[in-house]
Order: sequence, then C-alpha cells, then structure tokens
Amino acid sequence: MDIVAITGFSAAILTTASFLPQAIKTIQTKDTSGISLFMYSLFALGTLLWFLFGLFSYNMPVMIANAVTLVFACIILVYKIKYR
Amino acid sequence: MDIVAITGFSAAILTTASFLPQAIKTIQTKDTSGISLFMYSLFALGTLLWFLFGLFSYNMPVMIANAVTLVFACIILVYKIKYR
Repeated sequence: MDIVAITGFSAAILTTASFLPQAIKTIQTKDTSGISLFMYSLFALGTLLWFLFGLFSYNMPVMIANAVTLVFACIILVYKIKYR
Repeated sequence: MDIVAITGFSAAILTTASFLPQAIKTIQTKDTSGISLFMYSLFALGTLLWFLFGLFSYNMPVMIANAVTLVFACIILVYKIKYR
C-alpha cells in the first residue's frame, strides 16, 4: 500500500472505531444529557445512506465500515431516546 | 446525478452536518459528562487523516467535508477537555 492508501485506511479505521468507546460509555453510564439527539438522528440516517451508497456502488469497505458505525450510532441513539 | 451519486452526496451532507447540533449543544450547555473523550480523540484524528487523504488524492469534496467535520469535532473535544 502507498501512503495515500495507508492514510485512507487508517482514517476509516479511526472514524469507525471511535464510536465504540462512546457506545460503551453510554451503555455503562446511561448519561445521555450532553448527547445531541439531533446529531445522532442525522448521523444514523447519514451512515445508513453511506451503507446504501456502498451497496449500490459495489464498494465492500464502505459497506462494512458504515454497517459497523451504524450499529454503534443506533445503540447511542436508542439510549438517548430511552434515558433522556 | 444518478441515484448512487445522490445517495453518496446526501450521506456526506448528513454525516458532516450532524456534528453541528452536537457542537452547538455542547457550547450552550457545557454538559460533557456523557461525551466520550476517547471517541472525540480518535474521531478528530481520523477526520484529520481523511482530510489528508483528500489532499493527497486531489479529492476536493473529501477535503471540504472533513475540514468542516474536523472543526466541529475539535470544538467538542476542547469543551470536553475543558469542562470534564
């Protein structure tokens, strides 16, 4: 892999994985007062569209990364709705 | 634009714009107890790498979307560090 591919791959891993510590924290603390419902509503919808974009364009990395992110985002969104 | 391009464009707009309501909420309330420092550290770094990926690959939409997201993510990260 060249530097451009390594940068893109690292970027995808980091932005996808970043939602895991937030999901864990939200599940453990149920502290959602500072979390924006509007953010996670837009973000979950956007991630669903990224997944569909990956599906339509036969782009497996985009599909997988956004499927994982969508799961984390939906967990946070459900906790925000349940414990606001 | 075809359906694939519209889906990708809508996805990019939504995932980028979603961090604005979170940044506004965080600035207004300074309530960062439920926000994960680890998430925003990884996410800001990942968004910076996406920006560099856009720069290296001459992809202006990727650069612009991630520059905007990086600003929002850094605001939230600074508030999290300052008001945790």
